[in-house]
This record gives sequence, C-alpha cells and structure tokens, in this order.
Amino acid sequence: MASLSSQPYKGTRDFYPADKRVQNYIFNVWREVAERFGYEEYGAPLLEPIDIYAAKSGQEIVNEQTYQFTDRGGRNVAIRPEMTPSISRMVAGRRQELGYPARLYSIAQFMRYERPQHGREREFWQLNLDMFGVEGPQADAEMIIISDAIMRSFGADNKMFTIRINNRKLINYMMADYLGLDVIQSELMIKLFDKKGKISHEQFRDQAADIFGPTQQATGLSRIAALLSASSMAELPPEIRDSEPVREVRELFTILHDNGVTSAKFDISLMRGFDYYTGMVFEVFDNHPENNRSMFGGGRYDGLVGLFGVEPLPTVGMAPGATTTENFLRAHKLLPEFESSTDVYMIVLGEGSLKGAQKLAKELRAEGVKVAIDITNRKLDKQIKTAVKIKVPYMLFIGEKELSEELYRLKDVKSENEQTLGIERIVTTVADYRRRSDDDLDL
Amino acid sequence: MASLSSQPYKGTRDFYPADKRVQNYIFNVWREVAERFGYEEYGAPLLEPIDIYAAKSGQEIVNEQTYQFTDRGGRNVAIRPEMTPSISRMVAGRRQELGYPARLYSIAQFMRYERPQHGREREFWQLNLDMFGVEGPQADAEMIIISDAIMRSFGADNKMFTIRINNRKLINYMMADYLGLDVIQSELMIKLFDKKGKISHEQFRDQAADIFGPTQQATGLSRIAALLSASSMAELPPEIRDSEPVREVRELFTILHDNGVTSAKFDISLMRGFDYYTGMVFEVFDNHPENNRSMFGGGRYDGLVGLFGVEPLPTVGMAPGATTTENFLRAHKLLPEFESSTDVYMIVLGEGSLKGAQKLAKELRAEGVKVAIDITNRKLDKQIKTAVKIKVPYMLFIGEKELSEELYRLKDVKSENEQTLGIERIVTTVADYRRRSDDDLDL
Repeated sequence: MASLSSQPYKGTRDFYPADKRVQNYIFNVWREVAERFGYEEYGAPLLEPIDIYAAKSGQEIVNEQTYQFTDRGGRNVAIRPEMTPSISRMVAGRRQELGYPARLYSIAQFMRYERPQHGREREFWQLNLDMFGVEGPQADAEMIIISDAIMRSFGADNKMFTIRINNRKLINYMMADYLGLDVIQSELMIKLFDKKGKISHEQFRDQAADIFGPTQQATGLSRIAALLSASSMAELPPEIRDSEPVREVRELFTILHDNGVTSAKFDISLMRGFDYYTGMVFEVFDNHPENNRSMFGGGRYDGLVGLFGVEPLPTVGMAPGATTTENFLRAHKLLPEFESSTDVYMIVLGEGSLKGAQKLAKELRAEGVKVAIDITNRKLDKQIKTAVKIKVPYMLFIGEKELSEELYRLKDVKSENEQTLGIERIVTTVADYRRRSDDDLDL
Repeated sequence: MASLSSQPYKGTRDFYPADKRVQNYIFNVWREVAERFGYEEYGAPLLEPIDIYAAKSGQEIVNEQTYQFTDRGGRNVAIRPEMTPSISRMVAGRRQELGYPARLYSIAQFMRYERPQHGREREFWQLNLDMFGVEGPQADAEMIIISDAIMRSFGADNKMFTIRINNRKLINYMMADYLGLDVIQSELMIKLFDKKGKISHEQFRDQAADIFGPTQQATGLSRIAALLSASSMAELPPEIRDSEPVREVRELFTILHDNGVTSAKFDISLMRGFDYYTGMVFEVFDNHPENNRSMFGGGRYDGLVGLFGVEPLPTVGMAPGATTTENFLRAHKLLPEFESSTDVYMIVLGEGSLKGAQKLAKELRAEGVKVAIDITNRKLDKQIKTAVKIKVPYMLFIGEKELSEELYRLKDVKSENEQTLGIERIVTTVADYRRRSDDDLDL
C-alpha cells in the first residue's frame, strides 16, 4: 500500500507543543480579560443547519466559503464559518431563562474555504464575546473597552494599534441623506469604501464617480472629499456633524474617555463586511508599517436573535482571531518565549533505579510538580537530549546513590546550574521558578 | 419569512454557561493530570483526508459513522471521528525532530453519525493522551497509572470503577493456539466477546458454537468456559498461563502494584473495537449498578505512525470522553456545584453613579476581581434578579452615597450576609472566597 501523506489538510495547521503553547498563551489572555469583565464561557456545536447562515452572514460567505454538505439523514449543514448565528440561536432558545445583560464568550475554531495566505487559514480560532439585552452607547463602549484591554494585556501600546469606530446608522445617513444615493448605489458605495485601503486614490475616485453617475458625480465626489478630509467628528461637514447618528457616536466617545480608553478614533470610512450590523461598528488596526491591516472588529447587531422566533434583543459583539493576534505579537516583538508545561524531566541512571524514580515522581506530583520520567533505560546522553528537545526547565538525575541518600541533582537547563537537593527543596525551587515565569507573562 | 429553529443540530449539545462550567471542570482535571505526568498539549485540524481513517480505524466507523464530504477543491475529507490517526500523522511529520518518549495530549471534539442516546452524542469531546517511542510494559503501565489518577482526581474510589486489562497478543494466542480458530473465525469470535455483556449466556454459547462449527465445538466451548471461569491469571488453563503473552501481562501488573494502582484487574474477555491495537488493551468500567459500562479505554498501537511513510514507532494511548465522565460523576454524586466565573455583580443605583462604578470596577479588576457591571439603569429588583440568575457569589451596591464615602455594600448571595467595605477589603474577601472554593475542588 502506498504510504499516506503526513501533511495536514490544505489551509489547516498542526499545532505541535511549541505552537500550542503560543496558541494557549493567546487563549489564556482572552479568557482572563473576558472573565475580568464578567463574561461567562459557553460552547456551541461545530455543525449548524445552513439556513442560519443564509439568513444573515452575507452571500459571499454562504455561497463561496462555507464547508457545507448533506448529512446521512438528508440535512443540509455547514461547519460553522463564524459564531454569531450560533450564539444568537442559543440565546433565542433560552430567551426567557437568561439574565440580562447576558455577557457571553467562547473560544472556538471555524472553517471557511478561502485561498490560504499569510494570516488567513481555512481553519481558524476566535474569541467571540457578546453582550445581549442592552441598547445604547454604554454597551457599545464596553466592546471597545474590552478590545483595548485585550491589546494592553498582550503588552501593546497606542503606537502599535488603533481602534477605529463608525456607526451603521451614520453610514446609512451619509449614503442616503448626505450623498443622495439610492439603496443599490449605497450598497456599491459601501463595498467601495470597504476596499478603499487596497486600491489607489484614482481608482477609488473613478469607481465612486461611476456609482454616482453623470448627474450626481460632481457634487457627490466633492462631498466624499469633504467627509474623508475630516480627521475628527468636529471637522465633519455641518449637515452630518449635527445629525442624530453623530450625536450617538459622540456619546460613545465620551464614555470611552471616562473609562481611560486612548486608542480609539472616529473613522467615517469604516464599513465592516457582515450584513447584520445595525449600529456601532469598530475595527482594531495594526499600526505596524509592514502589517498595516484590520486585526479584528465587531459591532451592534440587534436583529439576529429575533430571526429564531422570539422577541428581538439588542446585541453587541466582537471576535478577535488567534492567527492575526499571533502575527501582531510577532511583528511587534511582544510574544514571550515559552518552555514546556513539564517542570522536571527525570533522567534515570540504570534500570534498577526506575522503581525508586517512580516513587519519587509520585511524591513530587502530589506537591504540584509536573514530572516526566524517562522510562527507556537509554544511555545518559540520549535521555538528556530528550529533555533539551522538549524545552523543560529542569532535569533531575536519579541513580542508586541518589535514591539511597535521598538527595538528587537538579539541573537548570538554561543556566546549567546544578544543585543537590532533597525533595522539599526541589518542590520549592520549581514553584519559585514557575511563579517568576507567570509574573513575567502578566506585563 | 418563517423563523429559524433555535434547536441545535441533531445529536449535538449547546453548552450554556452552567453546562460549560461542568465541561470545563472535566477538562481542567484532565489537563492537570496529563501535565502532572509530563504530557504536553497539541492541537490537530478538524478535517483530515478520508484515507487516514480508511487505513485503520475499522470499517464501521468509516463507512457508517464518519461525517465525510468532498470539499470545493475535490478532496475527500472527514470531520475527525477520533484523534489517533491525526496524532500519528503529526508524529510521522516530525519523526526526526521530536524527542522520545514523546508524551502528548489534546482535548478536542469529534463527530460520528451514530444514533444519539444517553451518553452518546454525535459531537463529543475527548482527552487524547499518547506516548510515542517506548516499547514494553513500563509505557503500557503509565497509561493505566494515568487513567487511575484521573479517576481519583475526580474523587472516585475502587468501589466506583475498575480498570480491566488484556493484551492483543494474548487474544491472538488464545484464538489461534488455544481455541484453534482460523483468521475468519477469530475475527467473529472477537466480535462475539465484544458484545458478551449485552447478550444472554445462552446466546453467547450458541453463537460461539456456530463459530467453532460441528467438529470443533465440544472442545472449543469447554475451553472457553475454562477461560472465563478464571478470575485471575493464576487460574488460567496451564497452556495459556505459561505463554509468553501472559508473562508480559504479569510484568505489567507487577509495575502497577509497585506504583500503588489497586483498581486494575486482568480480564481475558476484554477485546476493544479498533483494529489498530497490537498489544496491551484496557478499559475503565463504571461499577455503578445502573450505569455498569465501559467508560473509556486505550492500548498499544505500534503500527499507525509507520503508515505515513516513516519508520514505525511503538505507541500507547488512551481517550476518556467528557459525556461518559459527566454521567459517571453524576451517578456517583461526585460532581461539585459550580458558580459563575464572575466574582462580583455591580448593582448601580441611579444613572449618575455609573461613571463612578466603572472607575471602581477598573480598580477591582486590576486587583484580579472579576466584575460585571449592570449598565442598564433598571430598577434595583431587576438588577438583583440578573445577579441571582447568573449565580454570581457577590453583589456590590453602588450609589452616590457609597461613591462619596468610598465604602460599598458587598452582599454574599448564598448566605445573604452583607458587609460595608472599602476597596481593599472587597479584594481580600473575594480572593479568600475563591481560594476556599478552589481548595474544595481539589478533593
């Protein structure tokens, strides 16, 4: 039989322990921040009926990017391409029982059939964090405050990232009332704004002119120019500046200011791809010159829970991705170095010492020390090689002499310092080391 | 438009926060025990090429139970129905780079298209823990030692569970040498032993007689009776008792004895479903009279890594499931009561107090207290109702008077005790409470 390939399925990643440590670090920061703000974890199924995406996720995702198939019972299902429809369904299913505001988060994987490229994989992991049941800018602000807290927990500062904020109601007002576009023109203009960063100024202007058409284009283009030249809400053209949607955005910025958020910036050109947003939208941008891009975002989507046959619920949410986060941390040199989760690798000198080594390991484990024993009866150098490969902080040498004296050689792999210690001192040495390492991660 | 269903996809579960707390408790115990024994976490893709299951998982799983489909690029893929082929592929992909013994674990979900029933779901979660690179009974023993440690970490004792152990080599010896069966007969007999617990003694005897055929059945049936009446290795018929495979099993039991494992028992009727096992096999049985069943198992599968075009590697592994574990814990009343991950729910009295409440929340969070703020400006009783619904241990009342005096009413939701405290005392009260709760979980 021909041998099977050892490569992962196209667009997916194998997480070996060294990769998984990085992913777990990102997950742990997400989890810590989410819970710090009172969000509770939930879990949702991998598969959902395809209908729940067809309803609201946007046609591109459903038609071109979902992994969909018919199950053995004839049901049309998809591997979830995002979490928002699933959590909306779950909240609808317990509409009466849940307490509001319902603050919920999950850390889960998703699949989309996209062309794999840097920072984009077919299987990807996200934090999804949503608040159900609260209208208005206080709930909107909490999403920005938490996004800012996540970035700072990773060690980032205002030079490294900016949170850009806009509002769908303002976008609608701008398209219909200020630019005078009809529904179809508005949709085209929103798509054009969405790709603004990826095309030249001339291309943008030419395509905008096409959307306006000959009679509207002169006024339209000058109005767009006036909009885009405004670097703050105060500089917006008066017809927009004093509109109701802008008042809502202003209120949001006041709350952000009160809560000490300094990374947020108004950006009238920010749109967001999903069809379901109804109010505030935001995106966290990486300011690194070689990685200048939107990292993640979120916004208000008040219509989704109501699709599942219950009273609608106002909702805001956000979803950072692990791969974009990892790329950000690497670009800004914020990623710590990780060692093995194992504390001590026991090097066993001679088969006769194994039983004693296992007894000692049991005692150390009972005191919270994570111990791997070399049970191979190989030569010393081979055992040491394994300890170094798995990046364990300590090696412990166990032979007949050590077992009879109850004193063991503990070697710090990095510094190469070696101490001869009894069991109690081994426990405290390892515990001290882990405490220092954990403190280093809480920047 | 007709509204969408709020039910999860058939055979899958929604994990609301209360359900997720139980699942996280199980995951945390698994993780803690795995790392205590020096295993490191990895992650693998959701999808794999269907070929890797066709090779070894057993035909029932591939043909009847996999969720398989053709992707948009024409590749035949399956949602993983188990982890063993994926981790074997991953180890093969880094055959040279990994250090051995490679001790690896993952906690992940799987899907099989089975009839949903108690303790069996189409989407299910497992710990997978494997050791690569070590032959012989020491590695076999480590799987049993860890299984025993997991059960004890959940608070179980010998009355509640038994680990039954057998060996594929012994099964082969018994089928071919002792019972005189050919390959096809052996396969049928193994299947019959596998369902022994689910059929009557008469059915078992009749079907065994059919497999032997008229000339062999008299001797065959009496030999099976002799096997099954042996309650220990010493009582086995001499032809088997002194065989090489039994010597290997004896050695394993000596190591288990040396390591203080008292829950293990030899069981010659134990087979295990997967085709890929090559040596030791084991299953952990629930001894509860109403739930008497195999909870999880594992064994040695030395052939799998070699299928991926590299030198084979001796391997042992095991895979407990979350649902069977949860059912076990419920049946034996071992499941703790869980509260919200949130420590404090802030009841905000009057809109004017919100800004001050947010400032206080920020300070508490910086000290490690997990705080949800009620930002709804609702009446007091509505806010309290939410705090009770999410099962938070403490409510903190914030009004203008409290903010000006910097003293706040902290109410213990369960005991209804109320104290008026400054910020430092709030931090220590909550921290003490969490320390006590965590200690309670480490039984």
